[in-house]
Amino acid sequence: MNITTKFSDKVKHLEASAIREIFKLLAKPGIISFAGGAPDPNLFPTEELAEISADILRKQGKTALQYGVTEGYDPLRTWVKERLKKQGIFKDADEAIIVSGGQQGIDLASKSLLNPGDGLVCEEPSFIGGLNSFRSNNAEIYGVPVAEDGMDMEKLEALLKEHQNIKVLYTIATFQNPSGITMSLEKRKKLLTLASTYDFIIFEDNPYGELRFMGEDVPTIKSLDTEGRVVYFGSFSKILSPGLRLGFTACDKQLMERMIICKQVEDVHTNVLSQMIAYEFVTRYSIDAHIQKLREVYGRKCQLMMACMDKYFPSSVKHTHPEGGLFLFCTMPDGIDSKEVMQKALDKGVAFVPGATTMIDDKQSYPTFRMNYSTATEEEIEKGIQLLGEVLYEVVGE
Amino acid sequence: MNITTKFSDKVKHLEASAIREIFKLLAKPGIISFAGGAPDPNLFPTEELAEISADILRKQGKTALQYGVTEGYDPLRTWVKERLKKQGIFKDADEAIIVSGGQQGIDLASKSLLNPGDGLVCEEPSFIGGLNSFRSNNAEIYGVPVAEDGMDMEKLEALLKEHQNIKVLYTIATFQNPSGITMSLEKRKKLLTLASTYDFIIFEDNPYGELRFMGEDVPTIKSLDTEGRVVYFGSFSKILSPGLRLGFTACDKQLMERMIICKQVEDVHTNVLSQMIAYEFVTRYSIDAHIQKLREVYGRKCQLMMACMDKYFPSSVKHTHPEGGLFLFCTMPDGIDSKEVMQKALDKGVAFVPGATTMIDDKQSYPTFRMNYSTATEEEIEKGIQLLGEVLYEVVGE
Repeated sequence: MNITTKFSDKVKHLEASAIREIFKLLAKPGIISFAGGAPDPNLFPTEELAEISADILRKQGKTALQYGVTEGYDPLRTWVKERLKKQGIFKDADEAIIVSGGQQGIDLASKSLLNPGDGLVCEEPSFIGGLNSFRSNNAEIYGVPVAEDGMDMEKLEALLKEHQNIKVLYTIATFQNPSGITMSLEKRKKLLTLASTYDFIIFEDNPYGELRFMGEDVPTIKSLDTEGRVVYFGSFSKILSPGLRLGFTACDKQLMERMIICKQVEDVHTNVLSQMIAYEFVTRYSIDAHIQKLREVYGRKCQLMMACMDKYFPSSVKHTHPEGGLFLFCTMPDGIDSKEVMQKALDKGVAFVPGATTMIDDKQSYPTFRMNYSTATEEEIEKGIQLLGEVLYEVVGE
Repeated sequence: MNITTKFSDKVKHLEASAIREIFKLLAKPGIISFAGGAPDPNLFPTEELAEISADILRKQGKTALQYGVTEGYDPLRTWVKERLKKQGIFKDADEAIIVSGGQQGIDLASKSLLNPGDGLVCEEPSFIGGLNSFRSNNAEIYGVPVAEDGMDMEKLEALLKEHQNIKVLYTIATFQNPSGITMSLEKRKKLLTLASTYDFIIFEDNPYGELRFMGEDVPTIKSLDTEGRVVYFGSFSKILSPGLRLGFTACDKQLMERMIICKQVEDVHTNVLSQMIAYEFVTRYSIDAHIQKLREVYGRKCQLMMACMDKYFPSSVKHTHPEGGLFLFCTMPDGIDSKEVMQKALDKGVAFVPGATTMIDDKQSYPTFRMNYSTATEEEIEKGIQLLGEVLYEVVGE
């Protein structure tokens, strides 16, 4: 039997994540990769978590290994809500759920809100995992370009006037993936005004918000929201560990109920042992002290990468100047295809994510690419940027 | 803003799992519950897993806490494939994936194959998690009654003749949830012949298959399949721990590729630490020896529950005689609604799952209920069945 004839319309035309395909190329030994989005593994609190996990399994093993509830392990969920309350994010009409990584929150909210053909606006470039979630719900996706202070609000309003079907706007307002850009307070307020006028919901994806290493905090959009329009996605992946698959979502109680039902179908509940480990970690230690360490290291690495770019890259290749997060974004002169540059870079032993994978139409050529500075060591950053600079001089000249 | 006006058609009419609602009633202290489907927590290898998890985090913490691949942690995936090969389940054209619990496998396969309006056949009664997955993909669900040797094949063939839209058949052929019944070898062969004739796919959900405590093994349907028609769902939930959320699916490679893409959108990958813990457990210890312990305890508990039922239940209340798994199924005389009986039982301090939650049309009244014997202690089984017997005598008389 040829099973491909049985595929549903939903999956028939789906393609594997381009980033995933790139990761396969990275198997080449000795390659210096700026393509991932992973935390620095040297900063994982392995010894602390080793002690914690053994304690939990010895003393509370019957809970850690048994079925849990869909909403999440209660002490962790309560801790998340308290933290979000202090940050002004969690409101009286809200509820929170622990999910199996931030991506699951986006997926559950998308399922709960998007009908086929509903309009969804996002920054362009944006996060491929988010885009794939909206695609899999057959949303019509519209992109808004990103300026140094975030989404272009005039272009957004023009889109809202033109398309009556826009139901959701997706933004990574702080240290955006892939650009590293942060939306200004003014634009956040404007966005909420537009949401009220044009009656849409805002998905605020904030996995990097805690990782500020320069400048001043900007309030989250959710904390400024007075109409219950913002669905807030948080994650433990960047502040503790991605391998534990822990995230959280906070939004209006009624929407949360739908998301919980969808989660029952997807995976019943989030891994209990992981939730207990995370709860024990934030109880025994200071998560803020841990985050402070991450900020220092990522700040140093980001500064180093930018300094190396300024030294080794042709002046026609521009890069953003992030104040936090894991990424910066480079733009080569128009007409150059970063997918072709990537092939040359791989030959030299360096990898990045070509801009196409961050765009709504990923079949086009773009002169952009994403660079991650959290995973590589400082030596690798210095060497990798130098090698990449050689490739770029070949491609773009001075 | 009233967010309910924004809900997608997919979730607008979804209801929370009835079993979940029952679980809320169980919060009453002192209640003896036969309603769950959880393993005996006293059998979790907590000390072994405590040592293992600490070792992994100390020696391989950078892997355990970092992002993993969607297909699963390679050593565990290879181990699963080898085990399935030995069981005749994994074929040359197959691929396997580690999923976040058996439920996720069902959900990914459903998404990959079911269009709205496609026909899906299942045993009736069946597993609510499966049913909800098919419902959320807007499948048209048809039920086939279950005899003592499994699905009624004549009624199945009549259905297949009547409905041209049937694409998938879902079966828990071994120690079925909720009935505890096992499909005979003859019927398994007949089912494969029908699948070939009427060109449909079989979902074989087999979370309980390893838990046989009486009688002789019957080959899995997948092991008898020569046409690549069977998608096989396995789980670590019943043989190791449900809290770790680990399952696996094996099927044709091409279908697997679609499922992997769907999983990227749902949760990127399965918890890495859990996968490494499971792999380390099956490497350091004998999973078969562990399963043997479970079989002995569940066999003893099942025998005890049946003996108590024969002693304390009115003779008009019949029960199935499982040879493995976690459940048996009771049938009261026609016209009695098990939802009403459950209210009375709860007042007495005993809980079960009313048959309605296992049926396609869960709004009707059914004289059936599901009893779980794995979670309660032997003392609780004796006392709980006695109390339930008193309720049943009140309701049905002799």
